Amino acid sequence: MKIQPGITRRRFLGAAAASAAMATLPLPRRAEAGLRRADVIVVGAGLAGLTAARAIEQAGRSVAVVEARDRVGGRTLNHPLSGGAYTELGGMFTGPTQDRIQALAAAVGVGTFPTYNTGNNVFVGGDGRREEYPNNTPLGTAPVDPVVAPDIVLAVTQLDQMSQSVPVDSPWTAASAEQWDGQTLDTWLRANTSGSAEFMQVTSAATEAIFGCEPRELSLLYTLFYIAVSGNEQNAGTFERNFNTAGGAQETRFVGGAQTIALQVASQLRRGVLLGKPVSKIVQTPTGVVVYSDRFKAKAQRVIVAIPPTLAGCIAYDPPLPPLRDQLTQHMPQGTLMKFEAIYPTPFWRAKGLSGQVVSERGPIKVTFDTSPADGSLGIMMGFIGGHEARAWEDRSPQDLQTAALQNLATYFGNEALTPSDIVTINWSAETWNRGCPVAVLGPGTLLDFGAALRVPVGRIHWAGTETSTYWNGYMDGAVRSGERAAAEVLAALV
Amino acid sequence: MKIQPGITRRRFLGAAAASAAMATLPLPRRAEAGLRRADVIVVGAGLAGLTAARAIEQAGRSVAVVEARDRVGGRTLNHPLSGGAYTELGGMFTGPTQDRIQALAAAVGVGTFPTYNTGNNVFVGGDGRREEYPNNTPLGTAPVDPVVAPDIVLAVTQLDQMSQSVPVDSPWTAASAEQWDGQTLDTWLRANTSGSAEFMQVTSAATEAIFGCEPRELSLLYTLFYIAVSGNEQNAGTFERNFNTAGGAQETRFVGGAQTIALQVASQLRRGVLLGKPVSKIVQTPTGVVVYSDRFKAKAQRVIVAIPPTLAGCIAYDPPLPPLRDQLTQHMPQGTLMKFEAIYPTPFWRAKGLSGQVVSERGPIKVTFDTSPADGSLGIMMGFIGGHEARAWEDRSPQDLQTAALQNLATYFGNEALTPSDIVTINWSAETWNRGCPVAVLGPGTLLDFGAALRVPVGRIHWAGTETSTYWNGYMDGAVRSGERAAAEVLAALV
Repeated sequence: MKIQPGITRRRFLGAAAASAAMATLPLPRRAEAGLRRADVIVVGAGLAGLTAARAIEQAGRSVAVVEARDRVGGRTLNHPLSGGAYTELGGMFTGPTQDRIQALAAAVGVGTFPTYNTGNNVFVGGDGRREEYPNNTPLGTAPVDPVVAPDIVLAVTQLDQMSQSVPVDSPWTAASAEQWDGQTLDTWLRANTSGSAEFMQVTSAATEAIFGCEPRELSLLYTLFYIAVSGNEQNAGTFERNFNTAGGAQETRFVGGAQTIALQVASQLRRGVLLGKPVSKIVQTPTGVVVYSDRFKAKAQRVIVAIPPTLAGCIAYDPPLPPLRDQLTQHMPQGTLMKFEAIYPTPFWRAKGLSGQVVSERGPIKVTFDTSPADGSLGIMMGFIGGHEARAWEDRSPQDLQTAALQNLATYFGNEALTPSDIVTINWSAETWNRGCPVAVLGPGTLLDFGAALRVPVGRIHWAGTETSTYWNGYMDGAVRSGERAAAEVLAALV
Repeated sequence: MKIQPGITRRRFLGAAAASAAMATLPLPRRAEAGLRRADVIVVGAGLAGLTAARAIEQAGRSVAVVEARDRVGGRTLNHPLSGGAYTELGGMFTGPTQDRIQALAAAVGVGTFPTYNTGNNVFVGGDGRREEYPNNTPLGTAPVDPVVAPDIVLAVTQLDQMSQSVPVDSPWTAASAEQWDGQTLDTWLRANTSGSAEFMQVTSAATEAIFGCEPRELSLLYTLFYIAVSGNEQNAGTFERNFNTAGGAQETRFVGGAQTIALQVASQLRRGVLLGKPVSKIVQTPTGVVVYSDRFKAKAQRVIVAIPPTLAGCIAYDPPLPPLRDQLTQHMPQGTLMKFEAIYPTPFWRAKGLSGQVVSERGPIKVTFDTSPADGSLGIMMGFIGGHEARAWEDRSPQDLQTAALQNLATYFGNEALTPSDIVTINWSAETWNRGCPVAVLGPGTLLDFGAALRVPVGRIHWAGTETSTYWNGYMDGAVRSGERAAAEVLAALV
């Protein structure tokens, strides 16, 4: 298939996107001289690290934030389009019970608006059949297709029920932890549903978008934990809240894009953020901690490491980390996730009565969302390409991927999809300072055998990042919660 | 229980062991000036890297070996005892079809002798029952206990048969790869044996010693691959050859200790080995490759990275590695393994008709070997503490572990075991330049989803190390094979 002539620009983004985004939004100040000594050093200027730094400053203590990249925001990333518009290449949604990211956004003046969610969703089956279905059924966004819906109900109902016995702060202590962490989600699904090829394809579509992996890569216990944490102190987690739009984690968006929250927090830090300084070594002494980067070091009483575990495991620690902690970081690979965003003059699918949300068994794009601006002045169709699909496509040519992805969109929404005005694609696995997205993928045995080391401070070193959160682990809300928790630990320990 | 007064020395070893061992054996020369430029740079002076360097020199090309530690030998490590004796804290055994390590040993003048294997083995069940059994039954070293033996036969027979359809160079292409990489060994065992608690305990004892992990951490496909590679080009792999002493991978030992092979190879390299230089960055240019360490860099046409994948993943690469390769390294955690060695004036168990080999359901030590000197002038009892047992004990006090371990040995061999003259213990997970032992533990989905990146060179970067071998992956023989293969790749590419 030929590349459509209507495609005027396309980008496969790496670090370049960062500076582009930074140019249009408030830049954190760069104040290296002031960062040589502080009460606390925070490693990583994603939402976790920035939240921790903000809390520490608000408590009247000094903090230095050191970030490897030339931007802040971690797994959130705005990308400017022509005419002042933007698109979001990372985390972007929020919803009920995600109180902490919403509180932080409100505190720094970032508003919200509802995700477009009017009209029918689309399901495409393994044989290519295309069905439209209302997106407010009891299943939420899940397809009501007769071939797969009974298994979806069966699986979600059981998983929700099982998740209720998983303690969010210590899933490894669940009564059935050994049984559940001894098997993959794939194994459990085949044993507790029809296990039909169609249904397994739907579960792949779900885990590829939610975790960036296949059901075979997921521990059942970790899956249940992920469901259990899709809530807050008042509301038990449910899988529906995790995957739904209305009433779920995709219900709401942030004005100006989610990265704006990080940019605003960073710009309000008294000492700003030191960019472009990957931390290579952390040395603990009897009186403090020294953090090293290239031609740079800083001293503090405590350090908060607020980066993905797989990156935290690559810092040199002196003295070395306890073995359990080091081996935990070896067991927390990041998922495999690309985002494909096609920009159109208008959200043309809306006029056809479509919400823009798809679940499809045929990739590369199996899950989509309408991520147009709030005023609908532009049409943006965002597709997740995750897990096996991302791995299969990431080393093929951009043209091949584009052709296949646009063909997906044409199947879902009509041939207008074949002629976008712009395309923006990001492969988060190619980002050195993420090594993948959206979250760490925990296989069997990891929580049970290594989970106890997830949050335990090691001397003067404290751990943050969404992977350490007890609610909305893997989400922006979990990142914020982890930053708040780590800041509280540190503030209680400062002299 | 009190610490026995007969214990005169005990060590929990880290880097200190290295220099002690080096003092008694030929030291590789340190020739930094000569290492600034070479045809090939080898990262890592374990058996893989040293083998590659030797082959490259023998082909008349120049090679620089750069090693993070102050010693060579990687996962092999001699430890001197008083009176000129030594014990081995790392890889130490070899056996039939391990042709390449044996050829290398012979080439550098290191002889072999049989592992002590006379008398009865001991089995201890979950209820504490102790049984002696001949070690030359059809099951080899596996217990003949009536409660567990039928399941052992059932499991080994089926696993052997299934492994025959796993291609050693591409296990991800096996006809059943998706089914087998979708489940854990634990899942398969429960579904295809009685799944009794006793039998599952025996399988834990086996995987703890063989892989440093529990059956829940292992992909079934990876387990089958590991069996398939327990052979050579002429002889298909079998699980029995993997776990047996007579006719198996524990049949033979090396005179002077296995690390002597690495020391001899290193001492014969014309340019020696540059020690104490952890490689932090590898930069590829249009004309070559530059390898960086602390205040050091070297240039070459090609580089061979011959370190465990989890360590290779922590080097900075410019340009970055392809995502699949980087994510592969995130999915290859090292196992969790300690060795506990008790030294006695004599191998007292031999007089009781015992071989010194144990399989026990009661830890911390569940598998033992008589690793005394060839002449039996000293008694050395080596116990594996792996997987869950290692993790449970590694942050308890050395005294507690010693007490429990000696109690194990007393149960197995009698109360003489309670009063060793010396104890030497190593926790390989605490070794910064291993991050665990004996081998990478691959969970479900890793081979299928990431395996294709295991050996594919990335530009001028080639990959070695036992985890990349197509035979005896995880063993010293696999390390040597991988070094030979990587050297051949590089020699074919040099200009």
